[in-house]
Amino acid sequence: MRDRMAYYVQDLQRRIVTKMSDMDGSAFLIDTWQRPEGGFGTSCVLQDGNVFEKAGVNVSVIHGHLPPQAVRQMRARGHDRLDTRGGALPFFATGVSLVIHPRNPHAPTVHLNYRYFEVTNPNGEIVSWFGGGCDLTPAYLYEEDAVHFHNVIKDACDKHSPTYYPEYKKWCDEYFYNTHRGERRGIGGIFFDDVPAQGKQGEAFFDFIRDAGNAFLPSYVPIVKKRSKQSYSQEEKHWQQLRRGRYVEFNLVHDRGTKFGLMTPGARIESILMSLPLTARWEYGHLPLQGSPEAALVRVLREPQSWV
Amino acid sequence: MRDRMAYYVQDLQRRIVTKMSDMDGSAFLIDTWQRPEGGFGTSCVLQDGNVFEKAGVNVSVIHGHLPPQAVRQMRARGHDRLDTRGGALPFFATGVSLVIHPRNPHAPTVHLNYRYFEVTNPNGEIVSWFGGGCDLTPAYLYEEDAVHFHNVIKDACDKHSPTYYPEYKKWCDEYFYNTHRGERRGIGGIFFDDVPAQGKQGEAFFDFIRDAGNAFLPSYVPIVKKRSKQSYSQEEKHWQQLRRGRYVEFNLVHDRGTKFGLMTPGARIESILMSLPLTARWEYGHLPLQGSPEAALVRVLREPQSWV
Repeated sequence: MRDRMAYYVQDLQRRIVTKMSDMDGSAFLIDTWQRPEGGFGTSCVLQDGNVFEKAGVNVSVIHGHLPPQAVRQMRARGHDRLDTRGGALPFFATGVSLVIHPRNPHAPTVHLNYRYFEVTNPNGEIVSWFGGGCDLTPAYLYEEDAVHFHNVIKDACDKHSPTYYPEYKKWCDEYFYNTHRGERRGIGGIFFDDVPAQGKQGEAFFDFIRDAGNAFLPSYVPIVKKRSKQSYSQEEKHWQQLRRGRYVEFNLVHDRGTKFGLMTPGARIESILMSLPLTARWEYGHLPLQGSPEAALVRVLREPQSWV
Repeated sequence: MRDRMAYYVQDLQRRIVTKMSDMDGSAFLIDTWQRPEGGFGTSCVLQDGNVFEKAGVNVSVIHGHLPPQAVRQMRARGHDRLDTRGGALPFFATGVSLVIHPRNPHAPTVHLNYRYFEVTNPNGEIVSWFGGGCDLTPAYLYEEDAVHFHNVIKDACDKHSPTYYPEYKKWCDEYFYNTHRGERRGIGGIFFDDVPAQGKQGEAFFDFIRDAGNAFLPSYVPIVKKRSKQSYSQEEKHWQQLRRGRYVEFNLVHDRGTKFGLMTPGARIESILMSLPLTARWEYGHLPLQGSPEAALVRVLREPQSWV
């Protein structure tokens, strides 16, 4: 599973970067790095492009030892086969994560992450799981875009289980919640974590992960292509910048992955903070006008919708 | 002490807002608010001005009841006269806080906060303390500005005790540390917390707080006046925007006051996040050129200096 997942995320990264680079007419910066404690990664970044203000697609394939405290935390989170009686345990992790912030305020930001984590008990037994998801963050709400995005993801889910989409859609709405603002980061998608990766069940879930990953380009590209052609005003760009500020707030204050990364000694900060937009804005007490398109967005962020 | 501190912080706010408004040639938005659970405040904000990109000066005078868990945390932090045997305890808090982000990249951002906190035990005994400080965050280092700023603050400290400046300067360098970047937020100033506010000692410290607060305008105004006259390039503005990003990172990831505020139900989010700059920027893997003025700044952020 290690090798197959590591191969898959690198292949998906390559396909996404090729497509985005083609759409933008600009090359990505390809930054391959080694992790001193074990493993490697590739961060692909496009900044200040024609279509994309900032696009980052990161893959990591890392290994090492988990301190006992981290093992205990994972066990407490439900991985009850983890052996916490000994010391540090070997781990392996691989995943792809991306955040794309388009230039045009009518084109939504998108986030995707699929990852595999594995720990080996002292007796050689492997405990492993998948996590991830994909979600959309528009500055302006286009219902047809939300429906398209959710539909493509739902189709990938439904091929594998009728429970995946409703369950993971709800998880996404709950996870990407900017509690201090009382609003979701965006209009959702799917999110899941700690899904067992062993045996037949794990094999079946890996099939699902690949279908979900493969659904990314068809779910997002038509939307960003269409919206990037629209003209926009300074006022619309301004609103997008304020929404970027909320994106920064979620990622720095609430996102578990970012917080965990920032507290980890030796973590690769630039790869973790690649998710932040190129530019953002904060104004005191800004409120969208009643009945405006800006207010329409905030309404659906406050009350998640069923899009399909 | 309640009334005298509440009066002082409102008076200091008025003096600072008047001066800043005069320098900018723009009026502040004055937003007075009531706290449903008890108390009031005034948030004064100037956005997109001539001299200041964003300036926020906030005063709050609030009261209510502290849940037992919060009382226990304060006791654990050293307030050992707090009675944790009963339930919620009445509290009173007042303070002034400000963050000023000038437009010109040669003019530094400044932060100030002085506050008084008081809890009443069931037997009527009052446990109270002061906290606060003032610190400077330039995008470009001008040693003469750093020396001036620290000197004015040191003079205010030295009037009261020769130990205040060295002790509180060190505390400031330690507190405003962006651990995940390995650099301080700025070039320091002073910071202190949990200083007892009762009896003769408390009276003497209140005298010091007022002198420290009164030192703000002479410590900062000459610097911002001088630097705001300098011309600047697009590259310099660009570097300032990247430094604004680091400011956002510190405040959202590490600042205890901000984190506490964001997690507090019913907190006034707009007043808490008034400290964020109007605009900020994040670029992947940005590194200042060796030997450049940008690199000179980063060097002193990595290793705090003695400025006086």
